[in-house]
Amino acid sequence: MHLPGYYEFDCRVKIVSGRQALEKIPDLLYALHAKAPLIVTDQGVAGAGLLDTVIEVLGKNIVIGSVVDDIPPDAPLPVVEKTAKIYREKGCDALIAVGGGSVIDTAKAVNILVSEESDNLKQFSGAGALNRPLNPLIAIPTTAGTGSEVTLVAVVKDPENHIKIPFVSPFLQPDIAIIDPRMTLTLPAWVTAATAMDALTHAVEAYTCLARNPISDAHALAAIDLIHHHLLQVIRHPGDEIGRLALANAATLAGMAFSNAMVGMVHSLGHSVGGVCGAAHGACMAILLPYSLAYNQHKNGHLIAELLLPLAGEDIFIGTPKHQRTQAVIENINILNENLHDLTNGRHARYLKEIFDADGNRLVPKEKLPEIARVSLGDASRHYNPEEFDELDAMRVLEAAWEGAAPDSCSLLA
Amino acid sequence: MHLPGYYEFDCRVKIVSGRQALEKIPDLLYALHAKAPLIVTDQGVAGAGLLDTVIEVLGKNIVIGSVVDDIPPDAPLPVVEKTAKIYREKGCDALIAVGGGSVIDTAKAVNILVSEESDNLKQFSGAGALNRPLNPLIAIPTTAGTGSEVTLVAVVKDPENHIKIPFVSPFLQPDIAIIDPRMTLTLPAWVTAATAMDALTHAVEAYTCLARNPISDAHALAAIDLIHHHLLQVIRHPGDEIGRLALANAATLAGMAFSNAMVGMVHSLGHSVGGVCGAAHGACMAILLPYSLAYNQHKNGHLIAELLLPLAGEDIFIGTPKHQRTQAVIENINILNENLHDLTNGRHARYLKEIFDADGNRLVPKEKLPEIARVSLGDASRHYNPEEFDELDAMRVLEAAWEGAAPDSCSLLA
Repeated sequence: MHLPGYYEFDCRVKIVSGRQALEKIPDLLYALHAKAPLIVTDQGVAGAGLLDTVIEVLGKNIVIGSVVDDIPPDAPLPVVEKTAKIYREKGCDALIAVGGGSVIDTAKAVNILVSEESDNLKQFSGAGALNRPLNPLIAIPTTAGTGSEVTLVAVVKDPENHIKIPFVSPFLQPDIAIIDPRMTLTLPAWVTAATAMDALTHAVEAYTCLARNPISDAHALAAIDLIHHHLLQVIRHPGDEIGRLALANAATLAGMAFSNAMVGMVHSLGHSVGGVCGAAHGACMAILLPYSLAYNQHKNGHLIAELLLPLAGEDIFIGTPKHQRTQAVIENINILNENLHDLTNGRHARYLKEIFDADGNRLVPKEKLPEIARVSLGDASRHYNPEEFDELDAMRVLEAAWEGAAPDSCSLLA
Repeated sequence: MHLPGYYEFDCRVKIVSGRQALEKIPDLLYALHAKAPLIVTDQGVAGAGLLDTVIEVLGKNIVIGSVVDDIPPDAPLPVVEKTAKIYREKGCDALIAVGGGSVIDTAKAVNILVSEESDNLKQFSGAGALNRPLNPLIAIPTTAGTGSEVTLVAVVKDPENHIKIPFVSPFLQPDIAIIDPRMTLTLPAWVTAATAMDALTHAVEAYTCLARNPISDAHALAAIDLIHHHLLQVIRHPGDEIGRLALANAATLAGMAFSNAMVGMVHSLGHSVGGVCGAAHGACMAILLPYSLAYNQHKNGHLIAELLLPLAGEDIFIGTPKHQRTQAVIENINILNENLHDLTNGRHARYLKEIFDADGNRLVPKEKLPEIARVSLGDASRHYNPEEFDELDAMRVLEAAWEGAAPDSCSLLA
């Protein structure tokens, strides 16, 4: 067993979760000494009626400073600056982010500007540039996937220079994460599937990659267990409030895990598929997870094996001989993808070649794989993967995942 | 399944854990903007050389504001006041607590006085009296048991009025918990046993009592698994650094669990045995755990059953039919107590009648049980126990645990 010099686990976000979690916000704002929150969200969330739900709950008890309801994807820098301006003009003293990763990241970046009383976001980029608490921030995730509500990272797009600017600090963790099943109850099946597989990937990579630790392990195992027990059930019965809450809790737990243990090859390759071809993040995660596990298994098969019980349940666990558990984990993720594919009428892709845009065009042409492999080598997650990989190794995994070959074809086992 | 209105999980303590965790303190103090920490500890810790270890690691890199090395048990109010005076006189700006629950609670209480610039500690008693962050506090636990390094509670003794004053606030959570195996490496076997069983009880009660939630569950399961894998091994090989670190991590995980999920009957009865007879807390926990589980099992046997895998390992789990798992959990805790009794040459008590003081006198006379039962009814933990209990119910459990009857004799199952 490996005894590290030290590890750190840091999650200072207070989690408030449940069927009436939203109703706690007025008390929570009061405890944070906040009187005029700026609510930020996007048009999808507003269009789905979720902003109305939040405002209805808040409206009786607090004064809302202002609302910005048109945050675009990828948190562009000019939008961050414009939103900070509104915050100041309206005399706001806190932020409430209602949305997915882009909205929450925008709120985090706005909070840097307004708390540090700066107009120059870039001076706070990278790690360690913040050294004191920011203004109060409450995150209300509307997908059960990214875990942004508990991570210490924000990524902002600089459209002028065509780059993504990362910000990393414990002070970027929101003060509060509100996990309320009303926020995910109306997600379409294929989005539920993709975001849950994103969360599953966070948990599996956190448990099996190099920077794992006993506390992140606890969160990862719990997230996997919740997803196993509830995902297919929720896909079949979208109004299952208990299952929706369980999946949202799972995403938060998985976020707590990977924010402290990092991720590996699935994210390196998946970020790259997204960057080169514009494929959705969750879809890439779901497809690449079994293939990357197969690639890594000669190094950490014993850790992968430990996931069989939470991933597949006790009957399969008890019925599987010890030496077959690693294989069974990989197979069960494949089976889960097959089931999600069937239950979403093919909308959930099993292989990279099955990812299509809204017009039915293939998003990841086979001839793009070499470029994707090249780009993946620059991804930071690569350093936490149990096994090193070069361009050829990446191609081995990408080609199998594109075609739908057996994951075992990626294995480096003799 | 129960869907709560909401639950909260709040652990803002940064955990730094590992074989070189102490060495991180100078960097951590710097990040907290602290330049002159007051170190508080007790004579046992100082006498065991642990204070020297800490000072040696710190001394090269930071200036120590002052050291108070004679904190007595139970954090008496006059000691808190005197220590706050030293903090001010020496111009300190942070606290480092090196010790068990009493030392860490003293540091928390001192921190209230110096941060709030007050001389009247009592005005901050109870819940909700603090409403902003206190000065930096780093907790270095020297037992792997209480979990004080991650809880939001402090208890101070008022010797003048013969009462214990509780303080409850998220702001009482230390900023950092340092988990370093050097701090527990020399604990005697019986102390290792009692403190580990204290941690096990935190985890088991957090998982099976009324205020459980999915995040505290994750921590509880992980703590139980670590104790199962390492406790007996550490008792047999006290220098097992990996095992010591694992038990210390388990105690912290269990602290994170029960600080957010509360505890139940074991603590109600155990606090009372301690209060009436002066028996050590960990010893009471170990003894009362199987009996209280048996008392509760008609209400929550399905939850108790879920603990068999982490508590007893996969061979026993796989070999035990589903309907026998609850019983097997209770039996395996009994067996663990028996093993600890044997391995400590009888120093670890299995039953209340086996608890003796240093002179070999029985600490819990049978005729005290009615008083213990009465006092237990006033304990706050009682409200979180799955089943109500009155004086007669408490006597049923106490008598069985005193005599060493089969735990099943406490069961209310038909």
